[in-house]
Amino acid sequence: MGFLRKGTKCLICRAQKIDREAILFLPAYRLALCKEHFISWVKKRVYETIKQFSMFSKEDKILTAVSGGKDSLSLWFILNDLGYIADGLYIDLGIDKYSEDSKDLAKNFSERIGRKLYIIEVKNEIGRIPEVSKITNRPICSICGTVKRYLMNKYAKQLGYNIIATGHNLDDEVSFLFNNTLNWDIRYLSRQYPVLTEGKGFVKKVKPLCKITEKESAMFAFFNKIDYIKYECPFSLDSVSIKYKKFFSMLEEEFPSSKIRFYNNFLKNIFEILSKYREEEKLRNCIECGEPSLNEICSFCVLKNKFRKLENELELTKKV
Amino acid sequence: MGFLRKGTKCLICRAQKIDREAILFLPAYRLALCKEHFISWVKKRVYETIKQFSMFSKEDKILTAVSGGKDSLSLWFILNDLGYIADGLYIDLGIDKYSEDSKDLAKNFSERIGRKLYIIEVKNEIGRIPEVSKITNRPICSICGTVKRYLMNKYAKQLGYNIIATGHNLDDEVSFLFNNTLNWDIRYLSRQYPVLTEGKGFVKKVKPLCKITEKESAMFAFFNKIDYIKYECPFSLDSVSIKYKKFFSMLEEEFPSSKIRFYNNFLKNIFEILSKYREEEKLRNCIECGEPSLNEICSFCVLKNKFRKLENELELTKKV
Repeated sequence: MGFLRKGTKCLICRAQKIDREAILFLPAYRLALCKEHFISWVKKRVYETIKQFSMFSKEDKILTAVSGGKDSLSLWFILNDLGYIADGLYIDLGIDKYSEDSKDLAKNFSERIGRKLYIIEVKNEIGRIPEVSKITNRPICSICGTVKRYLMNKYAKQLGYNIIATGHNLDDEVSFLFNNTLNWDIRYLSRQYPVLTEGKGFVKKVKPLCKITEKESAMFAFFNKIDYIKYECPFSLDSVSIKYKKFFSMLEEEFPSSKIRFYNNFLKNIFEILSKYREEEKLRNCIECGEPSLNEICSFCVLKNKFRKLENELELTKKV
Repeated sequence: MGFLRKGTKCLICRAQKIDREAILFLPAYRLALCKEHFISWVKKRVYETIKQFSMFSKEDKILTAVSGGKDSLSLWFILNDLGYIADGLYIDLGIDKYSEDSKDLAKNFSERIGRKLYIIEVKNEIGRIPEVSKITNRPICSICGTVKRYLMNKYAKQLGYNIIATGHNLDDEVSFLFNNTLNWDIRYLSRQYPVLTEGKGFVKKVKPLCKITEKESAMFAFFNKIDYIKYECPFSLDSVSIKYKKFFSMLEEEFPSSKIRFYNNFLKNIFEILSKYREEEKLRNCIECGEPSLNEICSFCVLKNKFRKLENELELTKKV
């Protein structure tokens, strides 16, 4: 949020001939707002994003991927507030205190809004993420991504939901986009869209917060007294995506609206051109679990098999 | 340049079984080199760039746009060293001490390499750049660009050169590219190429240093005892392009090779796709000067007319 001069009035109040002080300033939009109008601004922006990309309607059954962080809880809050049918799915990754804390917050929040929260324990599905990473010697963030994508899709289908909504915010999207742009990777650029359509065993996935920055989302959670986990996953701190986010936040400080311009103009000016170069993925059903897969065995089952095998070998070594 | 551990050997010397210490390290290429092999590395890289983009051959007559800075003087040096016919064109912009100093350096250098240097005085063509900017109330960098492009092209033709070579380095190109990418501006992106082909009154323009960073170019100039102007144009210090350069240099520190990857992958993966969306510019001859123009009167003559008119009005006001 930008610097606010004392006495600055809320722009929307002023338009309604009400004299109320602004409490924050959004430099990207040159907008000074009071608490009430900031909250309605965020909700409106999310609603417009849902409409712009035809994400879902009031008839759809939405499963919100809830991590316990500000973005996913704010998203869940907004979806329900806007009158959509949205329950929650919490995936317990087994990252010690981080997972315990965030699970509690997700549970409390589900009670507050009176919506169902499903909890999936990764330890029962494959193993605790840090253990799986250690034993298979694969980067933890990559494993976490594979496992979450797999479980989200599988359980959404099982539980009868036709939409998965994730809390990716503008900073997340800009960081992905920048990474793909640095490499000019057409394969990824041609797929970077806030909606992934359903079909071939995949549930439709949407990102309704894609135009809300991390700061805006944190402020929204704060104003709505949403109790979210205040620290990052301990394994993500050194990630490339967090570094790109910092770079873009510095750029935004110097040139307000850089993030939203970069993202909006990508979607407006070039996504359609690149989408013509998108290669159709040849999907089949994993011979082990039946879920959609690029290969005979899906990446989740490959990981699981590798983990089981190495775990058994380790057990045997211990016994010997 | 990156950190060099004491005792690190030059990689090329080592390959030739010579035991010589490196004096610099290029993190983007993980290359430790001695002075001699750094110099030959730069020359080879420029030569390969010239070949890769079919910029020119030994039969062409090249006019090097010389500003007195490290890039243009290094470029001029390399072109002659590689055996190309390359003379120099210095455009005196009339920016006080900056222009005087850089003109002297360009003259001295032309004597050193025994090549012709043409000097164009902007004050005789239109007026000193800062004055033109002040009186016409147009940003100085934009005026400077218009004037330089116009005069370079006009004099290259008059003097009988068929190639204009400019000293744009990798940092310059990355900064342009990043600016155009932030806006996803297809019009500009589809033209960003190290060669602008000749035709319709335009001389072919090339950027042989497009894969050499600013630091590499400065080091090359230093090692070859090229005396260049050490300070930036006083009007460029606050420019957006300099800020983007700083931003990318920070990124490069954190992720070496970001700059060259961003630029190379753009040319390799996407330029061809975008070039299909390039709109043909409808050019005609300026009715005042006969140079190629998008409109009835070219942008140089429009500027000149405006400046003359305002200058006369100012003279009249003074007299009254």
